[in-house]
Amino acid sequence: MIKDNDFIKDHDIPGPTKEEIRCLVLCKSQVTEKDTVVDIGCGTGGLTVEFARRAGKVYAVDKNPEALKITRLNLEKFQLSPKVEVVDASAPQVLEDLPEFDILLVGGSSGKLSQILKEGYKKLNDDGRIIVTSILLETRVEAVATMKELGLIPEVVEVSISRGRILESGTMMTAQNPITIISTQKI
Amino acid sequence: MIKDNDFIKDHDIPGPTKEEIRCLVLCKSQVTEKDTVVDIGCGTGGLTVEFARRAGKVYAVDKNPEALKITRLNLEKFQLSPKVEVVDASAPQVLEDLPEFDILLVGGSSGKLSQILKEGYKKLNDDGRIIVTSILLETRVEAVATMKELGLIPEVVEVSISRGRILESGTMMTAQNPITIISTQKI
Amino acid sequence: MIKDNDFIKDHDIPGPTKEEIRCLVLCKSQVTEKDTVVDIGCGTGGLTVEFARRAGKVYAVDKNPEALKITRLNLEKFQLSPKVEVVDASAPQVLEDLPEFDILLVGGSSGKLSQILKEGYKKLNDDGRIIVTSILLETRVEAVATMKELGLIPEVVEVSISRGRILESGTMMTAQNPITIISTQKI
Amino acid sequence: MIKDNDFIKDHDIPGPTKEEIRCLVLCKSQVTEKDTVVDIGCGTGGLTVEFARRAGKVYAVDKNPEALKITRLNLEKFQLSPKVEVVDASAPQVLEDLPEFDILLVGGSSGKLSQILKEGYKKLNDDGRIIVTSILLETRVEAVATMKELGLIPEVVEVSISRGRILESGTMMTAQNPITIISTQKI
Repeated sequence: MIKDNDFIKDHDIPGPTKEEIRCLVLCKSQVTEKDTVVDIGCGTGGLTVEFARRAGKVYAVDKNPEALKITRLNLEKFQLSPKVEVVDASAPQVLEDLPEFDILLVGGSSGKLSQILKEGYKKLNDDGRIIVTSILLETRVEAVATMKELGLIPEVVEVSISRGRILESGTMMTAQNPITIISTQKI
Repeated sequence: MIKDNDFIKDHDIPGPTKEEIRCLVLCKSQVTEKDTVVDIGCGTGGLTVEFARRAGKVYAVDKNPEALKITRLNLEKFQLSPKVEVVDASAPQVLEDLPEFDILLVGGSSGKLSQILKEGYKKLNDDGRIIVTSILLETRVEAVATMKELGLIPEVVEVSISRGRILESGTMMTAQNPITIISTQKI
Repeated sequence: MIKDNDFIKDHDIPGPTKEEIRCLVLCKSQVTEKDTVVDIGCGTGGLTVEFARRAGKVYAVDKNPEALKITRLNLEKFQLSPKVEVVDASAPQVLEDLPEFDILLVGGSSGKLSQILKEGYKKLNDDGRIIVTSILLETRVEAVATMKELGLIPEVVEVSISRGRILESGTMMTAQNPITIISTQKI
Repeated sequence: MIKDNDFIKDHDIPGPTKEEIRCLVLCKSQVTEKDTVVDIGCGTGGLTVEFARRAGKVYAVDKNPEALKITRLNLEKFQLSPKVEVVDASAPQVLEDLPEFDILLVGGSSGKLSQILKEGYKKLNDDGRIIVTSILLETRVEAVATMKELGLIPEVVEVSISRGRILESGTMMTAQNPITIISTQKI
């Protein structure tokens, strides 16, 4: 995994998704080199970069041009630009214009999570996976409810990570904000 | 409980102990108005103030004069100065000079936790309680080991608290650093 | 605080609310001996007992007669029966029949949380507090949304507690299920 | 990742390491197909199986023959037996008899963590990784202290996972016991 500090950042853009969460999202996604991935709300591009290393093709979508700029810089830094198409667009509309895909990541949904999941589901290949990372109480519930509505079985995992800072006086535990990962697979 | 933001703070002084942790320490202490309390490493005075409201007498000890200054300001703010003696001294030495007490709080121990617990135990009344709040991996283990060595039964509780920030987009959960509370009672 | 194991239990009845959560609910409630408390979904009676020790009067409500039986046994055990009226009824309907109160606790809502909060709010005295304890993702969001709808400011605290089991090999941390406490005060 | 329930289990044998922890250990290990892995205290074989899928060779060590039996059954189930040597032996002694390796996993240490890390370090190839998973307060501290003593920089991550159970009434969060992962790399 890439360390959080190795990503180019911008304090106005959320991310990068923390190392341990990127790791868990990768595991839940079961990504392989055959997969096409769509990353909605790519922000800094942390997940985009990780998936670009392992998938066949990634579409990184954000409606904020500043976010796309940072994502592009990170893709260049890690020499992954050829595998990624950076798309300046809003979801769910953008989904109509994309080819079918195997993995849908939703990190930011600007209040349209339900529509994104429903539109995304239409373009999702058989056995495809959807993974939502949520920092808001409300998106967790919306993700679960929408997946159920689509006849899918949601898997919900709340992750709380604390990292130890090695000080002279000892190992001080510092918490990261909890993230809930809601994932499912098209049957 | 007093809200965290209602305490006078200084960015060089640790504290105040967060509201929920103060609450749990109070519960574990079983404090009553008959109790004499010693607060070692009082920092901002968060716990000192809470115990001063409920106990008979509190000794607030810190070796940092700046911490004692902030503690004094908070005691004045909450009109609790008469119940508290603020002591500019180092532990464990200071314990020799204090009268016997019912509750020993150790929030900061500057690497001398084991000695503080052993000396404190000598001055602890029957049925007295000791409560250590720990942010370092190492102090948790030292507290447990020393209590066992003294023939006491340690109770260990790790507390992770996230608070919701009410934003327009929803309720964002933000984590506080985990705290471990190690407590015991003299039998 | 009463230890979890000191309550009479029944494996069909939820509870008792764990010691640390009872402690935090008490703190958030700012309970005093002048307060009248309504506990909706009292289950085993853990919170009922704690509030009966500190409040003027408690109404313990559950629609499950078995739960009320266990609550009564615990009230007898802790000699608190005179301060508590045990009410065999469903919420929100029951709220109409109760006198006005200062603290509304909602531990179980059987899918009617929003109605309970709205009806409860009508009977809540000025400066009264409402505290919801939630184990379901959905009730957290419903509590926050309903409080906002009522013009109240919700405070959301997610609590994760692990307790150390003192084994010969060391101190093993065992997790309790996370609880979210949503509280508010009538302004 | 393999689901927890897909492993053959035995209630006397610890494990399998939960899915999310296996995932994080894999990420921290940076395992590739060129790596030789030693898994000390393999228990049910959860990590052994995951590493056997990704590494060149795995040595699964346990001093409990029953654990090794379960590990063998899981290796057969996942058709990974050819890549794994199951070793009935005690650590740290066994380390002397093994060839050099790239990744040392320590899940169970029977009170000999410090010696295992020191002996293991001698057989660790350049750029090799050590990963300790700890459920005891004491092993966390021992791992950090021993890594420091060896001139290594420990990375400490405490992981608390709750999983949502999809019930009719909603999504109930149930906690797994917290695990601390202490990892380092030979420089």
